[in-house]
Amino acid sequence: MDSTRAAAEKSKEAAYRISSLSIDERNEALKAVAAQLVKRKATIVEANRKDLAESERSGLTAPLLKRLKYDEPKIEESVRSIEALIAQEDPIGKVLSRMELDSGLILEKVSCPIGVIGVVFESRPDALVQISTLCVKSGNAVLLKGGSEAKNTNEALSLAIADALVMVDRCFENSVQNLSTREEFRALLQLDGLVDLIIPRGSNELVRSIQASTKIPVLGHAAGICHTYVDSEADLDVAVKVAFDAKCQYPAVCNAMETLLVHEAVAKAFLPRMAEAYRKAGVELRGDQEARNVIQAEPATEEDWSTEYNDLVLSIKVVHDLDQAIDHINRYGSHHTDAIITTSEQKAKTFMDLVDSSSVMWNCSTRFADGYRYGLGAEVGISTNKTHARGPVGLEGLTIYKWKLTGKGHIVADYTGKNAREFTHRKLL
Amino acid sequence: MDSTRAAAEKSKEAAYRISSLSIDERNEALKAVAAQLVKRKATIVEANRKDLAESERSGLTAPLLKRLKYDEPKIEESVRSIEALIAQEDPIGKVLSRMELDSGLILEKVSCPIGVIGVVFESRPDALVQISTLCVKSGNAVLLKGGSEAKNTNEALSLAIADALVMVDRCFENSVQNLSTREEFRALLQLDGLVDLIIPRGSNELVRSIQASTKIPVLGHAAGICHTYVDSEADLDVAVKVAFDAKCQYPAVCNAMETLLVHEAVAKAFLPRMAEAYRKAGVELRGDQEARNVIQAEPATEEDWSTEYNDLVLSIKVVHDLDQAIDHINRYGSHHTDAIITTSEQKAKTFMDLVDSSSVMWNCSTRFADGYRYGLGAEVGISTNKTHARGPVGLEGLTIYKWKLTGKGHIVADYTGKNAREFTHRKLL
Repeated sequence: MDSTRAAAEKSKEAAYRISSLSIDERNEALKAVAAQLVKRKATIVEANRKDLAESERSGLTAPLLKRLKYDEPKIEESVRSIEALIAQEDPIGKVLSRMELDSGLILEKVSCPIGVIGVVFESRPDALVQISTLCVKSGNAVLLKGGSEAKNTNEALSLAIADALVMVDRCFENSVQNLSTREEFRALLQLDGLVDLIIPRGSNELVRSIQASTKIPVLGHAAGICHTYVDSEADLDVAVKVAFDAKCQYPAVCNAMETLLVHEAVAKAFLPRMAEAYRKAGVELRGDQEARNVIQAEPATEEDWSTEYNDLVLSIKVVHDLDQAIDHINRYGSHHTDAIITTSEQKAKTFMDLVDSSSVMWNCSTRFADGYRYGLGAEVGISTNKTHARGPVGLEGLTIYKWKLTGKGHIVADYTGKNAREFTHRKLL
Repeated sequence: MDSTRAAAEKSKEAAYRISSLSIDERNEALKAVAAQLVKRKATIVEANRKDLAESERSGLTAPLLKRLKYDEPKIEESVRSIEALIAQEDPIGKVLSRMELDSGLILEKVSCPIGVIGVVFESRPDALVQISTLCVKSGNAVLLKGGSEAKNTNEALSLAIADALVMVDRCFENSVQNLSTREEFRALLQLDGLVDLIIPRGSNELVRSIQASTKIPVLGHAAGICHTYVDSEADLDVAVKVAFDAKCQYPAVCNAMETLLVHEAVAKAFLPRMAEAYRKAGVELRGDQEARNVIQAEPATEEDWSTEYNDLVLSIKVVHDLDQAIDHINRYGSHHTDAIITTSEQKAKTFMDLVDSSSVMWNCSTRFADGYRYGLGAEVGISTNKTHARGPVGLEGLTIYKWKLTGKGHIVADYTGKNAREFTHRKLL
């Protein structure tokens, strides 16, 4: 689509312009965004009411309506997040390493923005504010596409943000743009020469469909099939407490546990206690034969091991040793977050080294895998990628680096052939 | 292809096994590889002779035959690189950050191998040794596909390496595998669930065709259209020296300059001197009208600005200011390596911030952009990606990290609702 390409080209130009703004300039821009949200409170809430009314008419479910709602308290929450973001350290211009290659020839590796980020998200309008302010802080340009049910809210919000930015500095023009149709976002996915990173925030289906239809790097995770393994040397009080939290504290999210693995040596002592706790919380249990010898549970099928329930359902498997637990997790899991409960430091180390997941945990709940809890300040998303950024991703995930080499007329010819100069390669930082 | 999938699955299993080997074990394995290369010298050289003879019959050009040659001195060179690699710091298990989330709840971000790397390379058999030993050092499994003209050499080399590894530790089995046909590698590009990273080492055409046909992240660069910009405040002696080196020291490589940009204020003083030096070196010049007002040159066409000559050809453009130079580079360049020649620190800073390239240089030659010269020890490749790794990539590019969280029965429920515990988020490293 020509209009999408034009928008992406403008975004790229904006990305070049804003890449050299100082942290003070970027923070000023964030302050202006917060002020503008407050100033346009009435307009934004009104736009949201329109979306809510239309969505109610078209039969959107109650939980989705709740996510769609963006009222005064939600605006205040967005403003507080922006204030917290302003307080965060500048992710740009950090000297990651410095080396003298030779006298007067200094190499620096310096963090910088990635460029143009394409973001697609479902329902929650606060995601629009969050991700665009993260992009402002990190000096990136962003093209946003929200759910059609939040169309009016998203337009009001992105307009408020874009206006606030341009009022601070004209060079922010087009740095935050809103795409209004799904077709435009689909077209954006084909522009791998202009867009540097895609961040989908929404359902597993959304993420999978985007991963399948673009060559642009996608930061995210398509599934959260998390495990807790209760080892033969587990403290069973800890095991019951942690496995309960991992399943029940908030079952609808990606870092909740879906499969409980139990060492055969503790199955009889542990499973009946655990099952009792789960039954009280209304958790449906599905077990393999060995689990069902000890507790009441529906029979688990092969499919259960690779299912993300996102609900009060749990599959349970008894394993013969640590290796079997690790193999099961690496085979059926989604490389998101997995935990071991054990008093053995050696076994915990083996588990944490060999389980190929973005977060591995020892004697604590998988539910901790989250940017806020990890102290990252703001969360861009959770990634199960094996390159760039993995696990909960903070502002750093919106940065890359470039190499800056400063010389005094140095040429390569002097370092070759007879009488070649030698590099000093002296680490300065 | 089923056989490729089977090979990739074995590779994945091997990757899991070797991911927990200590640095001593990995270095022992590297020593064994070096020893085996020496021991099988005769076999390897004989296999290479067969390849050379066949390639000569089929009419391979002299430069390609030279690249294909892998004789005793080349083996010794490979052995020396392996020794240097053994001496390098362990890239795995580095604690990149450590934070107390709460009393007894400690989060670490630890570097780890990526997993399964697919490598395709052309001609040079030494690339096979280099890349597979880099993978051993970084705990990754690798699937290799070399050029068909080096078939016998590559088989002898990969067999020697695989045998050496397994003799040290059975867990290395299948960690280095050789794919023999182009079809197998094409099939590998489709296995994005099993292969984590593709590294192509070869022509721009090879890289481009691979980027176009896989969803797996590709580390590399498809082109090297590098610029040198001579500013109005340039020291012209430095400019002549550096621009000569950037074009002539080794024109056939990606970090050689293809376009020279000259500020109009110095065009008359600089271009005749520079053209004289180029003419002596046999460089063909192609200029825009303003350049041709000052020196003799063929007229440059629009196509010249986006052409990588890899030869003694240079396009020259006169620009009106720094901004125009930056715009030209960001528009026509390949985001590889670009240099400014100026005595103005302010202009150098602007150039280095705004030019969107993996390496930016001030008063030195673009030819410095190289892993060895940058002191990275070993070079995996040069990347123009905007995520994961950029510019010359060392061992670090073959690593990612995982998050390790250690608790004492910590659960998320304690940090929510009334009487919620607060996180301490105390940075320990």
